[in-house]
Amino acid sequence: MTRFSFAIAETDGAARTGAIAMHRGEIRTPAFMPVGTAATVKAMKPEGVRATGADIILGNTYHLVLRPGAERVARLGGLHKFMNWGRPILTDSGGFQVMSLGELTKKTEEGVRFKSHLDGSSHMLSPERSIEIQRLLGADIVMAFDECTPFPATEAQADASMKRSMRWARRSRDAFDVGDNHAARAALFGIQQGSMFRDVRQRSTDALLDIGFDGHAIGGLAVGEGHEAMCGVLDYAVAMLPTDKPRYLMGVGKPDDIVEAVRRGIDMFDCVLPTRSGRTGQAFAADGPINLRNARFAEDQGPIDETCACPTCASYSRAYVHHLVRSGEILGAMLMTEHNLWFYQALMQGLRDAIAGQRFDVYAASFLERYRS
Amino acid sequence: MTRFSFAIAETDGAARTGAIAMHRGEIRTPAFMPVGTAATVKAMKPEGVRATGADIILGNTYHLVLRPGAERVARLGGLHKFMNWGRPILTDSGGFQVMSLGELTKKTEEGVRFKSHLDGSSHMLSPERSIEIQRLLGADIVMAFDECTPFPATEAQADASMKRSMRWARRSRDAFDVGDNHAARAALFGIQQGSMFRDVRQRSTDALLDIGFDGHAIGGLAVGEGHEAMCGVLDYAVAMLPTDKPRYLMGVGKPDDIVEAVRRGIDMFDCVLPTRSGRTGQAFAADGPINLRNARFAEDQGPIDETCACPTCASYSRAYVHHLVRSGEILGAMLMTEHNLWFYQALMQGLRDAIAGQRFDVYAASFLERYRS
Repeated sequence: MTRFSFAIAETDGAARTGAIAMHRGEIRTPAFMPVGTAATVKAMKPEGVRATGADIILGNTYHLVLRPGAERVARLGGLHKFMNWGRPILTDSGGFQVMSLGELTKKTEEGVRFKSHLDGSSHMLSPERSIEIQRLLGADIVMAFDECTPFPATEAQADASMKRSMRWARRSRDAFDVGDNHAARAALFGIQQGSMFRDVRQRSTDALLDIGFDGHAIGGLAVGEGHEAMCGVLDYAVAMLPTDKPRYLMGVGKPDDIVEAVRRGIDMFDCVLPTRSGRTGQAFAADGPINLRNARFAEDQGPIDETCACPTCASYSRAYVHHLVRSGEILGAMLMTEHNLWFYQALMQGLRDAIAGQRFDVYAASFLERYRS
Repeated sequence: MTRFSFAIAETDGAARTGAIAMHRGEIRTPAFMPVGTAATVKAMKPEGVRATGADIILGNTYHLVLRPGAERVARLGGLHKFMNWGRPILTDSGGFQVMSLGELTKKTEEGVRFKSHLDGSSHMLSPERSIEIQRLLGADIVMAFDECTPFPATEAQADASMKRSMRWARRSRDAFDVGDNHAARAALFGIQQGSMFRDVRQRSTDALLDIGFDGHAIGGLAVGEGHEAMCGVLDYAVAMLPTDKPRYLMGVGKPDDIVEAVRRGIDMFDCVLPTRSGRTGQAFAADGPINLRNARFAEDQGPIDETCACPTCASYSRAYVHHLVRSGEILGAMLMTEHNLWFYQALMQGLRDAIAGQRFDVYAASFLERYRS
């Protein structure tokens, strides 16, 4: 049984394509992970998610621990069985969402105490509890519990936050390694922090390498710094990480963010954008995002995106989707979400093929020339 | 090209099974028509609707004329193309829904003037306009414009209401027959009214037969009279209608209503119950309806209905559907609606098979013995 292995098949500049092998299946990289917050990729059946080309999805520890509860999911056979998704699942640590609750939380060295947004009940999330929850869920890729440094931060704030995250990373590693058969099947990723500060990110990387992880995430980006600043950090932060392990840029992003991050050597992404947009009428298309609520689509017989091979574009007009979105119909969210996930996965396939063919720059230039975000 | 033909293959008592042939496909009878109110069977893709066994769906004239508008649907190629459903569609006349708007309507011999519940705009629905709308939508089975007599009604009220409906039925027939190629492809059904009064229903039937229709509906039931009273009317009202044309019981109903109506010779049904229930957590099962919101299902690993062959029951537990419904997830509505439509279509297939095998009474007794509504 393959616990975790990462093989790079081709590189083109800093960009790379390859695959992660795990016992529940292969993850082609660069990979986009649709977000399945509450044990469902919203408005999609799992077979529909798979048909878009997704090899792995992301589950949210925070949401799942509140409802239905990690122990309950475990009693029901784990998250894969519960939600009928047999391929790999990456779970976040819950830290990002807990800490975004603001006044409802109390942070200490031990962890974060927080109140449920559902019923006000009090919960504790720590490195040990986060890893336990991810084990109960049965995650294939487990994320270390950390603090996503708020933006903006001074260098001193970023350094203090990063150091706590690195202490929590060590505790996460120790908790993960406590012998049971989950660690034998799952992988653990550490998360580089450091906000906009190169030296802090270097020290974070050093700490992660000292602890040892199966893969590395870059945290603390896509938090409001903007596309240019994010690319500026990636220019140095990616290269700090080992080349032989997957690099995951958390919470990213827009299609142009993804192209630029892949150019700099990122292998994995997750973002709610395609699914959330699908429920608000925004569709991704080759020329950029369009809002199907717009009256100009009311009698538009063309597909959402003429370059798209998805089931929505094969059978439905912009006029019909416009009608569904305007009418608040569930089918509108279904068709739009499916289209958006196809768009993202088609982009990932395009990037993988371009890297494999040593024509990443041409592909990226062609995509970005047309796509207006 | 077959415009419309109805062939009864077998009878068992008053119950019959057979098929309606139309150019867009065959409708096996007794048939249940899922309701596609606003050009969508809510929370379902058309291929999913078809997979449940539905041969025909119903569209609502009232909703479609307000949004997106009948003329717009016509410009976009008709309702079938618009919503990607290539099989037969029956449209109602809009009368029932318009008249349930109450104070927002003004009824005259000409028709009904009403205000849109969406934007307050004023509209007129008459026999001529209703038929025109149904033609613009491209309906395969067109319903005469009538008044669903409010319940309860005195015999005098029922008679006056029925007589107006019969005048409107004549005008509907005349409007339908105005030469164009729609009448050559579509069928027109008349609607028997008369509330709870046998003599009034007989006179209504006489008037319909005098005008001449492709099929006959029974209107004015499932309006609050209850199961027993409805069966009491069907005991005489069905037999008034010609045996060689389809009989359609409008807006019915619960599974036990359907069994009793088929027993009395009804061939077609429509009802929002399976789809609407699917969005509120109520599932149909062999023992009767259950509400998946109920806490007792939180860790129930069984399927919604152990006797069901639907995709939901094949892959998802009650515990998972409970979680989705409690969380307000779209996938909950999707899985529940699919299950409920499968349940209804499985019932129709069971009824058809039982009639074909001359064992209707045994099948009905077995179903009703177990099913507690």
